[in-house]
Amino acid sequence: MNGNHTGSQGARPALTPLEPKADRETVRRHNLSLVLRAVRDEGEATRAGVAGRVGLTRAAVSSLVEQLMESGFLTESGKTFSGQAGRPGTVLKVARTGLAGVGVEINVDYVSVCVADLSGTDRVRLVEHLDNRGADPALVFSRAAAIAARALLSAAEQDLRPMGAALALPGLVTQGTVREAPNLGWRDVDARTPFAEALAALRPDLRRPQVRSENEANLAALAELWFGGLGEARSFLYLTGEIGVGGALVLDGELLRGANGFAGEIGHVSVADDGPLCRCGARGCLEQYAGQAALLRAAGLDERSGAHGVAELARRAAAGEPRALAALTGAGTMLGRVLSGAVNLFDPDAVVLGGIYRDLLPWLGPPAGAELATRVVSGLWPAEGVRLRAASPAADAARGAAALVLQDALADPVAYARFDEA
Amino acid sequence: MNGNHTGSQGARPALTPLEPKADRETVRRHNLSLVLRAVRDEGEATRAGVAGRVGLTRAAVSSLVEQLMESGFLTESGKTFSGQAGRPGTVLKVARTGLAGVGVEINVDYVSVCVADLSGTDRVRLVEHLDNRGADPALVFSRAAAIAARALLSAAEQDLRPMGAALALPGLVTQGTVREAPNLGWRDVDARTPFAEALAALRPDLRRPQVRSENEANLAALAELWFGGLGEARSFLYLTGEIGVGGALVLDGELLRGANGFAGEIGHVSVADDGPLCRCGARGCLEQYAGQAALLRAAGLDERSGAHGVAELARRAAAGEPRALAALTGAGTMLGRVLSGAVNLFDPDAVVLGGIYRDLLPWLGPPAGAELATRVVSGLWPAEGVRLRAASPAADAARGAAALVLQDALADPVAYARFDEA
Repeated sequence: MNGNHTGSQGARPALTPLEPKADRETVRRHNLSLVLRAVRDEGEATRAGVAGRVGLTRAAVSSLVEQLMESGFLTESGKTFSGQAGRPGTVLKVARTGLAGVGVEINVDYVSVCVADLSGTDRVRLVEHLDNRGADPALVFSRAAAIAARALLSAAEQDLRPMGAALALPGLVTQGTVREAPNLGWRDVDARTPFAEALAALRPDLRRPQVRSENEANLAALAELWFGGLGEARSFLYLTGEIGVGGALVLDGELLRGANGFAGEIGHVSVADDGPLCRCGARGCLEQYAGQAALLRAAGLDERSGAHGVAELARRAAAGEPRALAALTGAGTMLGRVLSGAVNLFDPDAVVLGGIYRDLLPWLGPPAGAELATRVVSGLWPAEGVRLRAASPAADAARGAAALVLQDALADPVAYARFDEA
Repeated sequence: MNGNHTGSQGARPALTPLEPKADRETVRRHNLSLVLRAVRDEGEATRAGVAGRVGLTRAAVSSLVEQLMESGFLTESGKTFSGQAGRPGTVLKVARTGLAGVGVEINVDYVSVCVADLSGTDRVRLVEHLDNRGADPALVFSRAAAIAARALLSAAEQDLRPMGAALALPGLVTQGTVREAPNLGWRDVDARTPFAEALAALRPDLRRPQVRSENEANLAALAELWFGGLGEARSFLYLTGEIGVGGALVLDGELLRGANGFAGEIGHVSVADDGPLCRCGARGCLEQYAGQAALLRAAGLDERSGAHGVAELARRAAAGEPRALAALTGAGTMLGRVLSGAVNLFDPDAVVLGGIYRDLLPWLGPPAGAELATRVVSGLWPAEGVRLRAASPAADAARGAAALVLQDALADPVAYARFDEA
């Protein structure tokens, strides 16, 4: 996962090792992906249409389509296209049953599991609120595996079988390891093996899944890019409010990872150099002013009351309760100050606020916008107002994680056997 | 110049418009560039070596080399390679006389002109210290053109003839226009035409040059990338101390420009929200603490004393003068705070300090490094110490500007006729 400014197509484990001589096999795998992605991009396509688009012969495409249908990636419907040159062709689509990606967001006070079909549609969602702070990683992974196992039962009801899973984690994740997750109290924790083992123990009928892991804000930002309402915007700053404050930068449609894998850590940008000590060791980090606990505390609510507390905060703010409004104005101002610096550095098309900030945007937005209007260099940020926008409700880290599995499978379908056949 | 995350190969004006049918001509222009860049990258090459490298036939390469020699891009030496298969070939090199790029940095209190040969070597340098603050842009461009004209006389002595010029300017530059240069007092000033006209008036013997313009920190960062000592580092944050504080971000070897062309404006990141009012309209910008004027003032020196004042500051600091040391420690601390936020967001391989910061690094570095060590998230910034490094003395904005012209010419040699033949 490390490396600068890479896309999200990481190394893919191949089930069948490639022989050194297997040049022809390499070409075929590449072409399988080409054809599969062409059908996915079009939604519906004929073999002739795909051949025209990818520049292969009709016969080659037919053979590739055959293999993709056999392995469950494509389906054929009886429908035919008319109005095109030549014989009408049978319509191909990406399979909506069968292969699926599993995304598991393990956050500080909840676990969310998403099972998405090959088209990226969210088909099963299971969220459980629980407190993972300070818990033994083994316990957290077994809890998450239990929730995933339940979600897979629902997926099976819809004829969906997992190809692999990806974990979204609230910390610095490099090469599959959680280097540091201060709000969980973790350091150097391997995330993939214990989850895969816990799931395998619960579901011995499934083949042991391939598991990836990634920072949750990065995955939420990718979900926003793939499924959100950003329109033309391809470069944006993503901020997500949770117990921690996560951040990610997307440039020209690609995630910026940074030299050490921690790009986007906006929650630990300092907003007051003599401010309160943060778990990261620095003082006055944005998280100490605009993190969930700080916000709830400032509003006079129990800082450990989680989603319930955030809903109560929104209710009080809507009712005009002064302490709630003051807490949100204060946090919004601090958010705006840090965002101004980030906008001066990065000049994005948009700033997207997710997590708890999505629901609190009506109260956080105006004070944050006022800071941006004053502090962004030379008022060159577009005059129609700062483009602070709420994250799409359809885009979150668990869906981003599921989509990461799908993206890998689309890039090399041969490597993504089902793990439901032990 | 606008657009996200583009490289520095902007649109190139073609001297001879391409016919719609001129497909063959397009291919030839492309191949001319391919051959030229192959020779430049190798330093010395034979026709056979180039043919092998670029995948063209020996005959095709010979014809292309012929045209590149005629138009002054390549030269041939009598030397031959032995130890290679086949007949020894004559050695080709990029011409060290003839075609050259002209870079003109127009800054607040100086103008620097660099004439670089096709290999990128700095062959003429002329720096004049003068005060451009609040001056009429027309006057500033005519001063700069006069300095460039004098530099071109020296270049002619070395048989160097300009192909084009690029201007480096201390402000937001988009599409050739200075949108905003607060320290010059400019807004929406076209930079290219007045310079080209002023130079044409002074040197009627030269063809009117093609002129590009660009932000000076961006060009200094590109110079650092192309000519500096960064080694493997391809992603870095560049900060340059001048009257203003300029900044640029290079990611994977490409300049980040941002959605509105102002990415990298680190001088206007706020370091104290109730700090002094900045010319940009915001409060407490880094420039108000670590800009040249603020530094000199804090040290008890005349804030308008320019390069002389900066040299005096360094002298006093070296002598242990407490006020000079306190001023540098204060500025270094503020630099470190803003850099910590930027590092948390971008996670670069290195942070490079140029302009006056290069000479002041012995005193700015320790306090800035202490802030970075505390504030960069989780101490993941490499343990061997924060990689704050001085910009290479061989890399500055004027050389970056000259190299921009060379880069354009290497990308399409046909478009770069000499402008010395009116």
